[in-house]
Amino acid sequence: MKKMIPGLVAALVLTALPAIAQDAAATPDPAAAPAVSADVAYIFNTLLFLIGGFLVMWMAAGFAMLEAGLVRSKNVTTQLFKNISLFAIAGIMYWVIGYNLMYPSDWTVPGIIGEIFSPKGIDAVGTGVADDGYSAGSDFFFQLMFCATTASIVSGTLAERVKLWPFMIFTVILTGVIYPIEASWQWGGGFLSEMGFSDFAGSTLVHATGGFAALAGAIVLGARYGKYRPDGRLQPMPGSNLALATLGTFILWLGWFGFNGASQLAIGSVNDAADVSRIFVNTNMAASAGAIAAVITTQLLYGKIDLTMVLNGALAGLVSITAEPLTPSIFAALLIGGVGGAIAVFVVPMLDKFKIDDVVGAIPVHLVAGVWGTIIVPATNPDTSFVTQIIGVVAIGAFTFVVSLVIWLILKATMGIRVDREAEITGLDISEMGMEAYPDFVQAK
Amino acid sequence: MKKMIPGLVAALVLTALPAIAQDAAATPDPAAAPAVSADVAYIFNTLLFLIGGFLVMWMAAGFAMLEAGLVRSKNVTTQLFKNISLFAIAGIMYWVIGYNLMYPSDWTVPGIIGEIFSPKGIDAVGTGVADDGYSAGSDFFFQLMFCATTASIVSGTLAERVKLWPFMIFTVILTGVIYPIEASWQWGGGFLSEMGFSDFAGSTLVHATGGFAALAGAIVLGARYGKYRPDGRLQPMPGSNLALATLGTFILWLGWFGFNGASQLAIGSVNDAADVSRIFVNTNMAASAGAIAAVITTQLLYGKIDLTMVLNGALAGLVSITAEPLTPSIFAALLIGGVGGAIAVFVVPMLDKFKIDDVVGAIPVHLVAGVWGTIIVPATNPDTSFVTQIIGVVAIGAFTFVVSLVIWLILKATMGIRVDREAEITGLDISEMGMEAYPDFVQAK
Amino acid sequence: MKKMIPGLVAALVLTALPAIAQDAAATPDPAAAPAVSADVAYIFNTLLFLIGGFLVMWMAAGFAMLEAGLVRSKNVTTQLFKNISLFAIAGIMYWVIGYNLMYPSDWTVPGIIGEIFSPKGIDAVGTGVADDGYSAGSDFFFQLMFCATTASIVSGTLAERVKLWPFMIFTVILTGVIYPIEASWQWGGGFLSEMGFSDFAGSTLVHATGGFAALAGAIVLGARYGKYRPDGRLQPMPGSNLALATLGTFILWLGWFGFNGASQLAIGSVNDAADVSRIFVNTNMAASAGAIAAVITTQLLYGKIDLTMVLNGALAGLVSITAEPLTPSIFAALLIGGVGGAIAVFVVPMLDKFKIDDVVGAIPVHLVAGVWGTIIVPATNPDTSFVTQIIGVVAIGAFTFVVSLVIWLILKATMGIRVDREAEITGLDISEMGMEAYPDFVQAK
Repeated sequence: MKKMIPGLVAALVLTALPAIAQDAAATPDPAAAPAVSADVAYIFNTLLFLIGGFLVMWMAAGFAMLEAGLVRSKNVTTQLFKNISLFAIAGIMYWVIGYNLMYPSDWTVPGIIGEIFSPKGIDAVGTGVADDGYSAGSDFFFQLMFCATTASIVSGTLAERVKLWPFMIFTVILTGVIYPIEASWQWGGGFLSEMGFSDFAGSTLVHATGGFAALAGAIVLGARYGKYRPDGRLQPMPGSNLALATLGTFILWLGWFGFNGASQLAIGSVNDAADVSRIFVNTNMAASAGAIAAVITTQLLYGKIDLTMVLNGALAGLVSITAEPLTPSIFAALLIGGVGGAIAVFVVPMLDKFKIDDVVGAIPVHLVAGVWGTIIVPATNPDTSFVTQIIGVVAIGAFTFVVSLVIWLILKATMGIRVDREAEITGLDISEMGMEAYPDFVQAK
Repeated sequence: MKKMIPGLVAALVLTALPAIAQDAAATPDPAAAPAVSADVAYIFNTLLFLIGGFLVMWMAAGFAMLEAGLVRSKNVTTQLFKNISLFAIAGIMYWVIGYNLMYPSDWTVPGIIGEIFSPKGIDAVGTGVADDGYSAGSDFFFQLMFCATTASIVSGTLAERVKLWPFMIFTVILTGVIYPIEASWQWGGGFLSEMGFSDFAGSTLVHATGGFAALAGAIVLGARYGKYRPDGRLQPMPGSNLALATLGTFILWLGWFGFNGASQLAIGSVNDAADVSRIFVNTNMAASAGAIAAVITTQLLYGKIDLTMVLNGALAGLVSITAEPLTPSIFAALLIGGVGGAIAVFVVPMLDKFKIDDVVGAIPVHLVAGVWGTIIVPATNPDTSFVTQIIGVVAIGAFTFVVSLVIWLILKATMGIRVDREAEITGLDISEMGMEAYPDFVQAK
Repeated sequence: MKKMIPGLVAALVLTALPAIAQDAAATPDPAAAPAVSADVAYIFNTLLFLIGGFLVMWMAAGFAMLEAGLVRSKNVTTQLFKNISLFAIAGIMYWVIGYNLMYPSDWTVPGIIGEIFSPKGIDAVGTGVADDGYSAGSDFFFQLMFCATTASIVSGTLAERVKLWPFMIFTVILTGVIYPIEASWQWGGGFLSEMGFSDFAGSTLVHATGGFAALAGAIVLGARYGKYRPDGRLQPMPGSNLALATLGTFILWLGWFGFNGASQLAIGSVNDAADVSRIFVNTNMAASAGAIAAVITTQLLYGKIDLTMVLNGALAGLVSITAEPLTPSIFAALLIGGVGGAIAVFVVPMLDKFKIDDVVGAIPVHLVAGVWGTIIVPATNPDTSFVTQIIGVVAIGAFTFVVSLVIWLILKATMGIRVDREAEITGLDISEMGMEAYPDFVQAK
């Protein structure tokens, strides 16, 4: 029974998706647009980026709460610090080089690495240009938040054992170089975009990328001390605060409306406004389906519903729909998100088989569900192909994984990336930061 | 002294309300509208629904935090799970049948039960129609969130003793059938709407409905073990985390601007924009007044300010103004919300007299203040009548209460709705879910 | 080394700021505006106030969480109560007299104290006027939130020892009288505005004002019992929940986009939309730089990164950029925010030297960084002068500090403002409110 579930779900999806995507095939109405002046459209589009941007910014708080809730109480301060500092680092690095590298005016290696020294400014005070379609500042603000999200994904996987400064150095490179380069391949007009690859809001460009960087780190770093016991069984290390973890999930769910919705990049026409709405609806449905899929699968597999799996199921649903939140019908969004939620449940024990210790489940949720979401795009979007989607995933995955691996290995060889065993047992809050998160409360053990 | 407070407050309100509502009687200016094209109005209206929708979505997190903070630590995981799963269930059920039932193309029983098999789609990709006034998807998204809110209200009352699966089954029926049917009576053009009933954003349609469903459940379920002691005294069962409860209240307060503000259903004209602003102002004033009313009444009644009552006072103020946030003057909003806040304080001990165990106070806040808010509408809105308002409340209340009662009784008779006594004492987190919310912290007792 | 850091930073800023501000000097393009009708601009501007307003409202939750996380567990309920009640009080008092006093139709003392008895209404139902530029209700809503923010700042400093009712009475006066009067000097067209003082979103008018009121209170109230030990050393009193404190910081960071962004007061033209975007970008950069500055300075000074300092660094960065978030280049924003973050770190021990006990660091963050941000405005905004900026800060500071001091002294002499020593040791939650925040958890000591 257990083993049949994935197969059944996959079969259902493959047969159902093409048919149910048909409501998206209607001909657009080109006459609807002109009644909005360029100035008004500019303001609407800018507003979309600003609203979308602050919603995605809020996701940084979501990751912080999710991770603070899923680590043990002795590592909470450190996890909180990593989340707020990575967001600040992203805010600086993406401006210093990231943004320029991601949207190159010219290419150093055509379609692959942009020209760094072509800095892009934002509009000077009082000098917006209606023909630009939106303000440069709003675009920078919105895109910066995607860069920060990528970095947020990494911190959860490596929790409870990574040293602070190597983590921050990796974040500098990830947000300044790795993310901008791979994202330039698609969103900066690079070779993947030329090939016809499609990743609407970043199932692969953001989420799987964060997941691949996390995977490389987890392999180099090794599992937490005691996690994989000599007898082959797992030592449970439950999260210390499921209220925070749930709050974090709700924050991420909310932020995702900005993440996917504003990735339409325009709301200055009737058609765009209807499309943004479609994206909101599909995004919510995929999250709902992911959560319910995790409820059902954990009940069937383990006889009990697992809250952290349900949270991860909702997030995996969201990641899955991110590659194409527009073309699916609502029912297709339900299937895509539902499969994503089930994937999260099934991949967790697989990782444990390989002794890859992913503290918060970021790899199943962001990497695996991100790949799923990217590859299934052609089922609802006729302008894409499975082959190109797979090429895109492989290219981005290989690049991110290899470069991240090399950096983690260099960091390990030079300054060391892991706290010593005693510090890990004591907890990083005392050993690394000298500050407990909950000093007034008596801790178990 | 104590007994005079309600009477004094009521007298003050009844004399003051008509006079102070007069600033709303000015003649609207019809010349102000036309300068906005249909396309631009469409985008504005759609944006209002999307912003309002994500704010109301956020209320799901507010309920989760409020309830997680008000239950004992041994039931927190379960409460968190119920909140996220009910939101996911609402997201699916409202799409499967709820939305169609609530806005019927045709009626099975005229004005009372819609035609289920008339599914309504959302706009296909790139095909918005300016004359629709707003995108179908944005409306669906916004309305879905109201359905989810109704379900959120129930979970708090039944906390700490209800079984997971019966609760989820009830949620399926509530979000798919009960809420959509009663809401169709008013917002779907049914018989209450024909009669002239008025409930702007759902004091009764959403909040009292959730409260009636909760009341039915609480009666069938019975009180928590040990709550009502043999000696007639109450066993205090204080909430485990007032920081979360306060956070939840702030989240709900924030979300309510979307709840009431976007219920104007349009912001595509100068008049609508001014009205939405009016609603924001009145909503905030009612919440402030509800909180302060609870500060004063608990200080007078108990000699100490009770934080959870203040939180509930603010929420009751919000619920009270929801039936009519537009026509009241700011001072009228203060009175309406203030009375709501005082109601919440006074109703809590009354429920205890009947041994109705409402863990988070959802019945005083959502049901009783919701009824108050609905019935007082004619004091500021001359297009309504007290008689019709009372008929509406009675119709919706009777329907929701009776149907809910029957469903809870059926669930009780078939699968059972209550965990056994031992499981309840141990806590649902261990007994139902096998997962503690705060495993690293030593718990009292 | 340690002592050189501030000097080096200051030198860097003073040389770098003028040059890097030049991108803001380009000539505005007056031709860009007219394509937006007055009606559409009105709706956009109103929407900006409403969105900005709900984001700033959300900051009240941020302060509540920040402060609840930074006090000891025995004072959490009280701190939560103060935060929600001050927000409710502001909501009422700013309507009763504050708003009228801040934007006087006429002056009682010209340019200094407005005519109280000139109440300003909001638009009656359905009667917006396009020529107003925005709805009166949206402006009231937005401005109210600034008043509430000022009050939020005070509660953190005085935590863990101030009595409830005197604090609430002070809040009534601060939100009804003190804030509106000093804010009228600038934003109500008073004498500072006439002089050419500039404070875009309130580094001084809101943040330093809250800080000065807090400073006066802290002096009159005295330090917490045991904080300054007889041997001259400090008794550490660590915050009880750094997860909440971090959440609060993220909330404030998010809310600040509304605080600064909507202080542009218009988004109904292409230029305004581009400017709001610029403000978002600069606000985020200042916060990022403030956080990183605190990371670096605490690592250098203390050999360990201090999370609470990093949180305060981010907030100080935000406060610093608030006086002028528009004219700085992104790099100037980085410097302004970075210096602000470093200031927060350096001022904390200075306050302790004077035995001024500021529980959450509100004085370094809001007062000192607010003054820094206000005084540095002329470095990037050529329409301002250092002399006028200093005059403005001194005038507002002196007024707020002296009036607050007098009120605190009167409150002390009459009803007493401090709980007795035993109550303070027990904790205010038991002694003042009779309700623990975390009753299920075993507390240390």
